[in-house]
Amino acid sequence: MTIYHLALRHPHGTTPIVAGLGALEDAAEELASWVAGRTLFVVSTPRVLGLHGPALDRLRGAALRSVVLEVDDGEGAKTLHTAERLWREMLVAGGKRDSRVVAFGGGSCADLAGFVAGCFLRGVEVMQVPTTLLAQVDAAIGGKTAVDLPGAKNSVGLFHHPARVIADTGLLATLPPEELRSGLVEVVKMAFLLEPELLTRVERDLERLLASDPEALGPVVAEAAAAKVAVVEADPEENGRRRLLNFGHTLGHAIEAVLDYRGLRHGEAVAYGLLFALRLAAGRGLPKEDAERLRALLRRFGLPPLPELAVDDLLEAAARDKKARESGLVWVLPVALGEGRSFTDVTEAEVRSALGPFLADPWAAG
Amino acid sequence: MTIYHLALRHPHGTTPIVAGLGALEDAAEELASWVAGRTLFVVSTPRVLGLHGPALDRLRGAALRSVVLEVDDGEGAKTLHTAERLWREMLVAGGKRDSRVVAFGGGSCADLAGFVAGCFLRGVEVMQVPTTLLAQVDAAIGGKTAVDLPGAKNSVGLFHHPARVIADTGLLATLPPEELRSGLVEVVKMAFLLEPELLTRVERDLERLLASDPEALGPVVAEAAAAKVAVVEADPEENGRRRLLNFGHTLGHAIEAVLDYRGLRHGEAVAYGLLFALRLAAGRGLPKEDAERLRALLRRFGLPPLPELAVDDLLEAAARDKKARESGLVWVLPVALGEGRSFTDVTEAEVRSALGPFLADPWAAG
Repeated sequence: MTIYHLALRHPHGTTPIVAGLGALEDAAEELASWVAGRTLFVVSTPRVLGLHGPALDRLRGAALRSVVLEVDDGEGAKTLHTAERLWREMLVAGGKRDSRVVAFGGGSCADLAGFVAGCFLRGVEVMQVPTTLLAQVDAAIGGKTAVDLPGAKNSVGLFHHPARVIADTGLLATLPPEELRSGLVEVVKMAFLLEPELLTRVERDLERLLASDPEALGPVVAEAAAAKVAVVEADPEENGRRRLLNFGHTLGHAIEAVLDYRGLRHGEAVAYGLLFALRLAAGRGLPKEDAERLRALLRRFGLPPLPELAVDDLLEAAARDKKARESGLVWVLPVALGEGRSFTDVTEAEVRSALGPFLADPWAAG
Repeated sequence: MTIYHLALRHPHGTTPIVAGLGALEDAAEELASWVAGRTLFVVSTPRVLGLHGPALDRLRGAALRSVVLEVDDGEGAKTLHTAERLWREMLVAGGKRDSRVVAFGGGSCADLAGFVAGCFLRGVEVMQVPTTLLAQVDAAIGGKTAVDLPGAKNSVGLFHHPARVIADTGLLATLPPEELRSGLVEVVKMAFLLEPELLTRVERDLERLLASDPEALGPVVAEAAAAKVAVVEADPEENGRRRLLNFGHTLGHAIEAVLDYRGLRHGEAVAYGLLFALRLAAGRGLPKEDAERLRALLRRFGLPPLPELAVDDLLEAAARDKKARESGLVWVLPVALGEGRSFTDVTEAEVRSALGPFLADPWAAG
């Protein structure tokens, strides 16, 4: 198997990213020196530790001492209450400015652990060891961290780049297919706007990817990570190009909020957000055949149906989204395959009139 | 009166600093354009708003709308609970990524509002309008923000540089003398290690400064701010030279922690921390006459006596301090007037044997 080495340059330094089957083993020596003589805090969930705990044994053995900070699975862990509990446990365990944090779990764990590390004593180093496809290609890369407030996902957080990201695709073998599918939606999102060749690869290998074939997953994780790195380097704090990553997320987040983060996974909600964005993009230059290509690929994902949702609820949730500005919502839309733009001129009336038909038949071309 | 214009360059941009009597008025036009068309959140205390609220009328009038977020006076406001309340109020009021925050109060208000702004939607711009001398010369400059956990001051926070600092010495006219004294301790701390000419100025003008004479305060605020700017620019995130600002703070923070932040003001505790640091510095090259010069100046401050404290309690509190590393405490000590260094070789035994006599007679040369 191939191990892929990337690097993300950001205003505070460089984050090495190692991806592929056996990436943890490949990086073992550097990791040992990173924790030598220090206290290591492992933020993880009982489920992930039960499945993959031994994968961290060598790292934990190299630290002065290691402390496990257990959190719940999923979005429910991303609360200030949990963050405060972790900070208190870290203080009690003698955590210092030179302590290290490892985030060992999915996207929620990555967000929470990054936030906890970023604010503990004004910032300690964190390494991301994502255990889901979603986290390997997206959440663990780029320094975004956050917890949620009621009704406001990711409303409290900061940019805190990890010291290192280890995306070991061997950890994905235990993922249920719907988790792989959710992560692949983010891959497809990036591929469509940033890396059309990756889109072709996903179209070709989709069945193997959904079956967690590590040979197929390795290059997909590495190429998606590379696409994200390029965008983040160009715009570390999301003032411009990085917003392209929000393709599908304006409505996707609103769907998740209205459903109270139950019923659909993040990637599944984003898939419906992508379908809706294609409708708005239709009047802004996106060729029909490109839209249909993305729609056809997403059809093969076998997504769960979109639950019944009300237009007003979605509009209200979208207006509360943190990507909104005083002047209104920002929509990231493709204008061609491999090219996206932020639009601020999409009126509420247009969104409203497109949403009704979309909710009735999300898969239609609109 | 003279208005002083400074600028602090940091990894994310430049912070303009305006100091002197009438600084708010002087900056009025830029401030108006900073808030135009945006929601403005004013973080302040009922006491400060009662004394100086009208000073912000013009700024508030220039915003799309302004919302006051009231917090308690003093260190008690710096809790996660208060921060969460503010974030919720900001969401309810429709706060967006392009909203603005103004911190209008003392050092605690600056720390809290900076933290709240730094984490709201992963960071909105904050302007510091400090209303105490301590905050004008120290807390409002340099981007350090934080809240406290029980027994662990400033243990949760981040670096989030203000978009602007307005240090209007006209706001200091209502400060009680003990507040001015507390702020002047931080001035003296910086002057002794970084800017001996400022030390001479404080020695010359001390009585006028303690009487809140705005003509005397203007240049002192500006020179102390300039000294801090130089240190922060050289080391934005406190990996080296910025640690010099912790002169007097290793024991000072421990004293505050053991007293549970009651009984002594921050600057008063730091003054005793400076006196103790002079004892440790005596064996490391600091000429006797320099130590005596600082001691003589601090004597003129008329500090409240040091409460009864136990050596073990102080050592335990110091070990918990966030400046501690796995290898032990770091002590910033002067080696000459205008020159300080970080020492990591001060053993616990040495600290312990110096602390006993110090607590018995803090003002002796030791």
